[in-house]
Amino acid sequence: MADRKNLKMVISYDGSGYSGWQRLGGTQKKKSIQSCIETVLQEVTKLDNLKIAGSGRTDAGVHAKGQVANFHVPSSFLTDKFTLESWKENCNYKLPEDIRILSLEEVENNFHSRYSAIKKTYVYYLDTRETPCVFSRKYSLWVGNKLDVDAMKECSSLFLGEHDFRGFSSEKDMEKDTIRRIYNITFKREKHLLAISITGDGFLYNMVRILVGTLLEVGRGERTLEQVRFALDNPKRKYAGVTVSSCGLFLYKVDYK
Amino acid sequence: MADRKNLKMVISYDGSGYSGWQRLGGTQKKKSIQSCIETVLQEVTKLDNLKIAGSGRTDAGVHAKGQVANFHVPSSFLTDKFTLESWKENCNYKLPEDIRILSLEEVENNFHSRYSAIKKTYVYYLDTRETPCVFSRKYSLWVGNKLDVDAMKECSSLFLGEHDFRGFSSEKDMEKDTIRRIYNITFKREKHLLAISITGDGFLYNMVRILVGTLLEVGRGERTLEQVRFALDNPKRKYAGVTVSSCGLFLYKVDYK
Repeated sequence: MADRKNLKMVISYDGSGYSGWQRLGGTQKKKSIQSCIETVLQEVTKLDNLKIAGSGRTDAGVHAKGQVANFHVPSSFLTDKFTLESWKENCNYKLPEDIRILSLEEVENNFHSRYSAIKKTYVYYLDTRETPCVFSRKYSLWVGNKLDVDAMKECSSLFLGEHDFRGFSSEKDMEKDTIRRIYNITFKREKHLLAISITGDGFLYNMVRILVGTLLEVGRGERTLEQVRFALDNPKRKYAGVTVSSCGLFLYKVDYK
Repeated sequence: MADRKNLKMVISYDGSGYSGWQRLGGTQKKKSIQSCIETVLQEVTKLDNLKIAGSGRTDAGVHAKGQVANFHVPSSFLTDKFTLESWKENCNYKLPEDIRILSLEEVENNFHSRYSAIKKTYVYYLDTRETPCVFSRKYSLWVGNKLDVDAMKECSSLFLGEHDFRGFSSEKDMEKDTIRRIYNITFKREKHLLAISITGDGFLYNMVRILVGTLLEVGRGERTLEQVRFALDNPKRKYAGVTVSSCGLFLYKVDYK
């Protein structure tokens, strides 16, 4: 492996126009983020079989401010003339304008964007204007200004720590181990947006969107804290809240050791 | 006129997908903002000839956070059941998601959104990240982080007060009176964006975009303050800076007596 280098990228994308992170087979009309990046990297490196590994799949429509991916190239690819910086700029020039590589660096050979990750942070944006903001419409969910944010904060504390989040995950694609740990949930006002930031050791399929859906129902007075406790204790999908739209969701950061 | 009411709207729109504010003849493929709003108002009121008057035209691609328009309807249109609030909601429901009426109120019969205006404020957003932000790409101009903002501020003070801005306007559509007064130019950092806010008693065609283009050239060290003074004293288009892209420009506010 000494003749190969392991490269780590941090990527930002507007997921609105894509089928999600992963390349999908079949009749999918929209492209995937991963395939767009691979196409450009293959063009730049002339390596037809170059594949990248993402820290995790993001669903169709989900955005990223800090998705991480890594890939291997022969050591000979990096020279004094063709530095990582020039390589990054070259890729950004060729990528569609809704995908950008924010950084590109060499990492240890055993680094894996998914398996080396210890924490992930997602942020969900709620538009709390009286009238939906036209500029945030693709990057937030409009919920109006009548939410009980204190009740949502109280509810969010129930999710902290280790729980079986089976009920807070789509039944379509259930993993065997459904225990996850949530480290932190914060609420922050950014002008007319309410940003809910959730950090955990990992998330099940649709889990962030169902957590936010449950919080929203509490904020609207449609669900009590007792009902949320019950959903955590009795992990069935039907006891948890709705799955909110993907458009307000951002993969914000992936942390490594 | 006692049997007619004069209604004033404040409107926000994402101009990316439109030909501009005004309805244009000919082979224009994109719709205008004005025609979209008129179509919806005609549908709601059943008045085929209802027309609205905007405070001014915004170019193709220019956005608005506070465009103002007014129009007249028979007094009988407003009843206890069909209030302005319900009317506004009705219109917003029918409008495309990139246009929203923020407020709708009755004003004095002699109010005119254009002729009663005393001040207008435009804001231009510059994206100063090292790598362009994918989420701001339609709402700012990417200029990188190497601008000399102090030089731009110094230059902006030259524009304050009354000047003949003929040189800072497109020659295509020149008005007879090219004297305008600029009250205020401010620079504000909003995270990775630099917002340049310009308030004046009115603006010539393309004037804000040329003022920002000139400021940018100063910020990049491509133009001296002496050259800017010369352009103000010798009002010919060729002496002023470039016309920057419409995508970073927002009609922010229109002030009335």
